[in-house]
Amino acid sequence: MPRWEPDGVGRLQAAALELFAEKGFERTTVAEIAERAGLTKRSFFNHFADKREVLFSPLSEMQREIVAREIKLRADALPPLEAVVCGLQAAADEIFEERRDAVTRRGSIIKANPELQERELRKRAVLTEAIATALRERGIDSGTALLSARAGVLVQQTAMERWTQSAENRPLREWLSDALLGLRAIIGQTTGEQIVASED
Amino acid sequence: MPRWEPDGVGRLQAAALELFAEKGFERTTVAEIAERAGLTKRSFFNHFADKREVLFSPLSEMQREIVAREIKLRADALPPLEAVVCGLQAAADEIFEERRDAVTRRGSIIKANPELQERELRKRAVLTEAIATALRERGIDSGTALLSARAGVLVQQTAMERWTQSAENRPLREWLSDALLGLRAIIGQTTGEQIVASED
Repeated sequence: MPRWEPDGVGRLQAAALELFAEKGFERTTVAEIAERAGLTKRSFFNHFADKREVLFSPLSEMQREIVAREIKLRADALPPLEAVVCGLQAAADEIFEERRDAVTRRGSIIKANPELQERELRKRAVLTEAIATALRERGIDSGTALLSARAGVLVQQTAMERWTQSAENRPLREWLSDALLGLRAIIGQTTGEQIVASED
Repeated sequence: MPRWEPDGVGRLQAAALELFAEKGFERTTVAEIAERAGLTKRSFFNHFADKREVLFSPLSEMQREIVAREIKLRADALPPLEAVVCGLQAAADEIFEERRDAVTRRGSIIKANPELQERELRKRAVLTEAIATALRERGIDSGTALLSARAGVLVQQTAMERWTQSAENRPLREWLSDALLGLRAIIGQTTGEQIVASED
């Protein structure tokens, strides 16, 4: 049985963020993270599969679950992409809003390391798949589900960057709403001519 | 000076596609690829940085260059996302259209291997950056440039999948056009209520 560790995950993540900022991601060892958190290396691996994962888990899993839950609740009443953005907003309120500083520090660490960027890209692909699956389960056709999921994740990525980088102190849910409007504006700009005639 | 190697790159890529299909990506060595192509391992590394790269280079660099070139030509006359899609269509005509079979086989190999998926995601991020940079150089504001680049790469990814997977025999440029229309339809669907009031 694991030792009693009040908020072991939180302590390990706080320690990891400190050490990655001080020494860089590559030069920090799992043993050092565990030591800084007052825990054992074994305990680290009870919570995280590897050193990278301490920056992703469990928030990315929680985000996927919340978004899928909201899509299931809302997909009958809203068009697919709006249901997705509502889901992302629910996750923003429930898990990200209170953690802006940690999310911002985490963002700079990821930006400085190609291995971490790869993990970030992979998590984004997994979120896209989870969203597309939730939409399909509500009867949305496969092509529309995938396109809506991709558009939603694009909105999420853009909003997250603005939320962490902007001097304006606005909640993430508003940046999500703004990013959706921004995307709508870009997509809506058209010369009126169709750039290539489609044959069907 | 390198030995004279008529189309060394093409021979290495054809050999790699064969071997990856026969033995899987992981069990194939660079030495085997070179041998099948009738070349040396050294010659492989003259053309490709690593085993993964044989599936990506030089088409992804060529694609980036063509897209950036077209954006520079068209960004004054077209809205940003349409300029991006025109660029993607030019690359479709110039480099992908004649290679549908190879692109399709390459797609199945990548799908089966997480390491290759990571490289694919990374190449997509690099393409996104190149597009955003080209738009900024034509005076498009940074936020719009990034959002348009991301939307364009989403269109590219979706069109590429449909082109390689569909039973319909239509040119990639048409799938690009269709994916843009599909995205426009999804983004345009709205309840009319703004899902969250923005404060500004």
